[in-house]
Amino acid sequence: MQALDAKDLGRALCIITGASRGFGRTTALQISELVKPKSVLVLAARNAEALQTLQAELAASKAGKAGVIVEYVVADLGVKEGVESVVKAVKLHSSEDFDHLILVNNAGSLGALRYAKTLTDMAEVTSYMAFNLSSAVCLTAGVLEAFPRREGLRRTVVNVSSRCALEPFQSWGLYCSGKAARDMMFKVLAVESPDLRVVNYSPGPLDTGMQLEARTLTEDDSLRNTFADMFSKGKLLTCEASCAKLTTLLLKDEYTSGAHVDFYDV
Amino acid sequence: MQALDAKDLGRALCIITGASRGFGRTTALQISELVKPKSVLVLAARNAEALQTLQAELAASKAGKAGVIVEYVVADLGVKEGVESVVKAVKLHSSEDFDHLILVNNAGSLGALRYAKTLTDMAEVTSYMAFNLSSAVCLTAGVLEAFPRREGLRRTVVNVSSRCALEPFQSWGLYCSGKAARDMMFKVLAVESPDLRVVNYSPGPLDTGMQLEARTLTEDDSLRNTFADMFSKGKLLTCEASCAKLTTLLLKDEYTSGAHVDFYDV
Repeated sequence: MQALDAKDLGRALCIITGASRGFGRTTALQISELVKPKSVLVLAARNAEALQTLQAELAASKAGKAGVIVEYVVADLGVKEGVESVVKAVKLHSSEDFDHLILVNNAGSLGALRYAKTLTDMAEVTSYMAFNLSSAVCLTAGVLEAFPRREGLRRTVVNVSSRCALEPFQSWGLYCSGKAARDMMFKVLAVESPDLRVVNYSPGPLDTGMQLEARTLTEDDSLRNTFADMFSKGKLLTCEASCAKLTTLLLKDEYTSGAHVDFYDV
Repeated sequence: MQALDAKDLGRALCIITGASRGFGRTTALQISELVKPKSVLVLAARNAEALQTLQAELAASKAGKAGVIVEYVVADLGVKEGVESVVKAVKLHSSEDFDHLILVNNAGSLGALRYAKTLTDMAEVTSYMAFNLSSAVCLTAGVLEAFPRREGLRRTVVNVSSRCALEPFQSWGLYCSGKAARDMMFKVLAVESPDLRVVNYSPGPLDTGMQLEARTLTEDDSLRNTFADMFSKGKLLTCEASCAKLTTLLLKDEYTSGAHVDFYDV
């Protein structure tokens, strides 16, 4: 696992979910600069237009001109057809000679930001978990199946996590539970498969559309005000700064597989 | 919260899921002996015959003769109709003058005991979470809605948890994730509603049908052998011994709400 030059991530096949905006988009841009020519980025999200724009931007970039290929898959990861379409796109590359498989499970949603005692609707809870847990689990399994263990192939799985995986936040029951479940599943994967490199990366409070939801829709007054305060005082992080820490983690490749690594700890 | 006599749990309405066997059944038996006459036990499970038998056993017991009423609901908690039927049965008692509402979210399943890298089927993961997370969340919300905060009403919510909520076990990805998600949801509930008493109780390795599954179906050889070894060396706990610690917790009522409390820590 120490064989690669820490200056780049190798000739990689890199799959990023939720790539159309926010942290996922930034991850696509930053990783494109760290992979070797003939690397392939497979970007998945629901928004076709945003993915097209990102593809064009990457094609025109230094990385694109150097031969990094960018594909995208328009998919709703809340349903199995969406996950299957991403796996299908990945499988088309399974005979290629990559030296690094990178899967960034970034897609996620806040869900209802209401108190747990109001969560009476099973369909709401279950569909939240389908998108926020099942899709990441099944995409990971599908991608690993398409690229089984092979000499010379490094395989890295990133779960974009949150402090909410570790700590309860008022009126954020769905998000906290979903992130706790994801962290645990990727911890299990890490102990099961020591040949994989698995990291639960908590990117910190990012200045994204999700934070706008957080500071406007959170039912709990105190927590909502905390988010509004962080925004107005300029305390939110840029996706660029946070993603730079993630890419540093991946380049150094020294984290304990399965660990929860927070932006503030790197 | 300290008003009750620690010798009993008061005149209680007590709902127990997964009550037909194992830990849930033992909980029904033990709690019946700790509640005052005119208390009501609502027992939920899929197996009608086993519930009938338990009801008859309780009716003939000292508690039953002293006036503890036992009802049961045959319900599949993996689907919303099942959860709704339990909530409906609970609501029939909403005008009664209980001084303690006790909900024991015990129902649960191990799910596929396979490695995470084989979990490619979204329906499998999602239906696992529906039964093991959504049902507990929505039943809790429904029951709390039927019995809102009221002077003189103590409200206790038990989540039957597991060490798997805290620690990854090989080939137990579903179970570990589900338990992690549940623990987190009940932690959130506890911080949101300081008037509730919420405990994530980890009952230890119990000598139940679930352990038989564990020692025969676990994909990981090492973990499967560990379970088989615990069984053959008589290291599994009886449901009675573990449940006695839970009831002691409830009687003393000194735990931190939202805490994860392990059998071995009590």
